[in-house]
Parts: sequence; structure tokens; C-alpha cells
Amino acid sequence: MNELSLIRSIRKWCASAAAGGLVAGIGDDCAILRTRAGEDLLVTTDLLIEGIHFTRAQSSAADVGWKAVARGLSDIAAMGGDPRFALISLALPRWADMAYVRALYRSAGTLARRHGVRIVGGDVSRATKLAADIVVLGAVPRGKALRRSGARPGDVIWVSGALGRAAARGYKDRPAPRIELGRNLRGRATACMDLSDGLALDLHRLALESGLSAELDGAFPSAAGAGLEHVLFGGEDYELLCTMPPRVRPSSEWTRVGVMTKGRAGRVMLCGKPLPVKGWDPLR
Amino acid sequence: MNELSLIRSIRKWCASAAAGGLVAGIGDDCAILRTRAGEDLLVTTDLLIEGIHFTRAQSSAADVGWKAVARGLSDIAAMGGDPRFALISLALPRWADMAYVRALYRSAGTLARRHGVRIVGGDVSRATKLAADIVVLGAVPRGKALRRSGARPGDVIWVSGALGRAAARGYKDRPAPRIELGRNLRGRATACMDLSDGLALDLHRLALESGLSAELDGAFPSAAGAGLEHVLFGGEDYELLCTMPPRVRPSSEWTRVGVMTKGRAGRVMLCGKPLPVKGWDPLR
Repeated sequence: MNELSLIRSIRKWCASAAAGGLVAGIGDDCAILRTRAGEDLLVTTDLLIEGIHFTRAQSSAADVGWKAVARGLSDIAAMGGDPRFALISLALPRWADMAYVRALYRSAGTLARRHGVRIVGGDVSRATKLAADIVVLGAVPRGKALRRSGARPGDVIWVSGALGRAAARGYKDRPAPRIELGRNLRGRATACMDLSDGLALDLHRLALESGLSAELDGAFPSAAGAGLEHVLFGGEDYELLCTMPPRVRPSSEWTRVGVMTKGRAGRVMLCGKPLPVKGWDPLR
Repeated sequence: MNELSLIRSIRKWCASAAAGGLVAGIGDDCAILRTRAGEDLLVTTDLLIEGIHFTRAQSSAADVGWKAVARGLSDIAAMGGDPRFALISLALPRWADMAYVRALYRSAGTLARRHGVRIVGGDVSRATKLAADIVVLGAVPRGKALRRSGARPGDVIWVSGALGRAAARGYKDRPAPRIELGRNLRGRATACMDLSDGLALDLHRLALESGLSAELDGAFPSAAGAGLEHVLFGGEDYELLCTMPPRVRPSSEWTRVGVMTKGRAGRVMLCGKPLPVKGWDPLR
């Protein structure tokens, strides 16, 4: 396997029907994209590293490809965006042969296509541990991106789906990024982010950016087998966390978990006591 | 060092005067950017990995930050683009302390600012070896990106600067991306790419994409101390390689090295013999 032959293969695996806005994909120095008038562009990048985010024993090539794309798509969902394009940079140990890389790309491509996303570029290199850096580009109508900083006192805090699922399953599941849910929040939510590091830590971040405190009700939608520790501190759920004015009633996918309050920026209260600022930390 | 505190610091290091087109930078799930009407967007991503692209013994934190940004900017230069925004994803071993990361960012920021580029996002994680993935976004007037595929038979092959410099210096230099030179090729060059893996391999790629052969004259602009082996196969020069119609006379920064010919796609001839398709390969 050399760079020329691998890139030729990746180009083949990622070929599909022409996508709107794509001028040139894999095979040149840059991908060339065209945005539409009246849009803001969203860009996110996320590392997935062997031994930190996954182990070979636990995750197949297909799991790794899926998770890499899911993490990037989830960031676009968190801004209420439409994902459009992805780039994957792969650092490959010698054990990762052509079959492994193909399985990784097949799985990445399956999830990408499900959301209308084209893989348009990336990079490849050797390394001692496998690492995948996913870049996703998306778009929102101009000025409509959902930020972490927009919550107001009295806004109700909502989460999608059930929490603690990944932790309860030993982080072996394949997350489904909440693109549709995020898109439907445009113009309704005052703040939004995705739950990648656990409710306690992520709500702390949202509250900090909004300059407010948060008060949890004490009841949480929890996944089968997930205890309170998993729900609050487990991470990797890739559900959405948002705030909405009290009058807004979201769809049944959402559960109320608390309310935003005036107070020390970033403080999260549960049963009258501040929650510790802890969760999944990639620098642990 | 935890994720929250590191990101807070990075945000501070990357703060600078508001840049055109930036709606929101570091600190949310995505960066939010605004492109101008009549532009195409360029996106590139490049891995820089300890033990593959650099060693700790040889490269300081400042060298690593500089090189990461330079590699991304060089890809934008190769398309004739104006670089605008960068994201840096960093995988950090335990030895890389706050002072190291700060020095890396300071240097990355210096080169970025020199070209009017804002660092607007990225990711951080632990790892056993240091890795930096740079993402650069740029723009060109619609339809004006310089591709590898546009060369025509009879076009003259040009290179900027002097070749073999990096190899002759043991890959210790800080490359200067050729943004201005690339921009000036718009509407003049028929094909262009940057010289990252050596003239032999990169010209093979350009010829392959253009469906042509290439014939080298046999004389090359070489850097001080660089032999023919360095010039042809050394790599990491980050100069530009382009083709132009025979009537075009470029500025004095350019040296003619050959001509594009009809023939087997991708074949590069030197003194009547085909050059081996070899050079710097990150998958060696």
C-alpha cells in the first residue's frame, strides 16, 4: 500500500452521484465547494484516536468509520445545520491493511450518504496508533446557527432521546446524529449543543457561554441499564441539549430536565447542590 | 491540563481583530463562516505526525506549529486561492505541557496572521505520539481554482524558487507557502499543484490528472547544497509546480523545467528515460 494507490482506492470508494455544491472532490490539493447565497457555513473537526476514544479489541473498522463521521455530524446537528461535505484524515498503523481501510470507508460512507453528505477529501499517513480526524462542512440560513451562548433566564432545558446509553453499553454503540432534530430547532431554541461529554459537563459549558446558572429537576430520560452516574457523567451519547423559552412545547423526542437561572456563570445545581464539573475528558 | 482549561487558553491565544467573514470562532460546536458571493470555497486537511513527519529531537514546538499551518496554506496556494480560516486538531502526549502547546499555537498564529488567516477552531485529545491535523479554508473567484488536470500538450512546465532545499537541510527549515505566486497564476496557468513529495512524484501526479506525459529539460533550479536526488525525490519544498501555454512568460521567481507532451498518462521522462515514480510517501 502506498499513498498513490490508497488515494486512488479511496476516491473510488467515495464516488457517488454528483452532489449540489461540489465542484471537485478527492484528488487535488483542495476540495472545491460552492455555497448558496444567504447561507452561513459551519465547519467542525473531531479527532478519534486508538487507545483514547476506542480500542481495536472493542471496535471494528466499520465501528471506527461510523463513529468518526457520527461525531462530526453531531456537531453540525448541534448548530441546527444541514451537513454537506466531509473530509477524513487517517493516520494508519502497519496492521491497518487495505481491507481494514476499505471497511472503515464503507461504513463512513454509509452514514454520510444517509444524511446527504459527500466525502470530498482528507489525508493519509503512517502512525503507530490509528487516528481519524473528521472534518464536516454544513450550512444554515444566514444568522440562524444555534449557539451555546443564547440561553436566557427562565428558559427550559431539554434533552433529546435517552441518556447514558453509550456508557451503559461500554461505549460500543453506533450513535445516530440528531440532524433532523437539530434542524427543527432553528428559530425555536435559544441555545443548543450536542451531548458528547456527559450532561453535567456539557450543561456547564452551555451555561458558561450563556453567562447563566442551570437548575436540574432531578428526573432524566435514561437509557436501558443506565444509572445516574452514566446519565450525568458518561458521555458519548450524541443526543442534543437545548434551551427554549417556557412557552415553546417541543415534540415528543424531547424531555425537560431543568431550567436556566440567573447566577454564577456555568454553575449546574442538582437537589440544591452544585454538580461537579466532570465528565468525559480527552485530556485525562 | 484539562480540556476546558486548554480550550480557554487556545481561544485566548487565537484571539485577534475581527476578520471578514467570521461569524463565530473557537468555543462552540462548529465555527460559523460567511463566504462572499461569486466565490468558490477551497478546503484542505493535512496531518503532521511525530515520528513520521518530524521528531522531537529535530523540531521545536514552534517548528511543528509553523509546519502544520504552512502545509495547509501551501495547498491553498496550489489552487490559486486566498486562505481565510484554519482549524487545528491536536493529539497531545503527556510530555506536551501547556508551555509546549502555547509555543506551537504562537508560531502557528504568526504564520497564519502573515497571510490574513484566522484560527477558528479545532479539537484536542490525548495520544501517545503528537499529531496535528490542519484544516485550511480559502476562496477563489468562481471557476478560477487552479487544478492539476488542466495541462495541455505543449504547455511549458515551471517551478517556483529552488528545489531540494528541505532535503538538503535534513527537513529542518520552515517553509514559506507561495500564496502570492499562486494567486498571480489565476487565469494564466493551465494546471498547478504544490511540491510536497518531490518533483518526480508530484509531476507524475499532475501529468496523470491531465492525461499527459511530461518531458523534463534536464536542468533544474536547485537550492544551496541540494543534489539531483534531493531535487527530484526529496520532497517538502512547498514550492509550486505549474504549466502554462508556451506564449506566457511568468515572473523571475519561476524556472522552466520541461514541457507537457502527448503520451502515456503520468509518465515523466528525463534524458530519454522514464523517471521512477518515487518520492516522499507518508505510507512508507
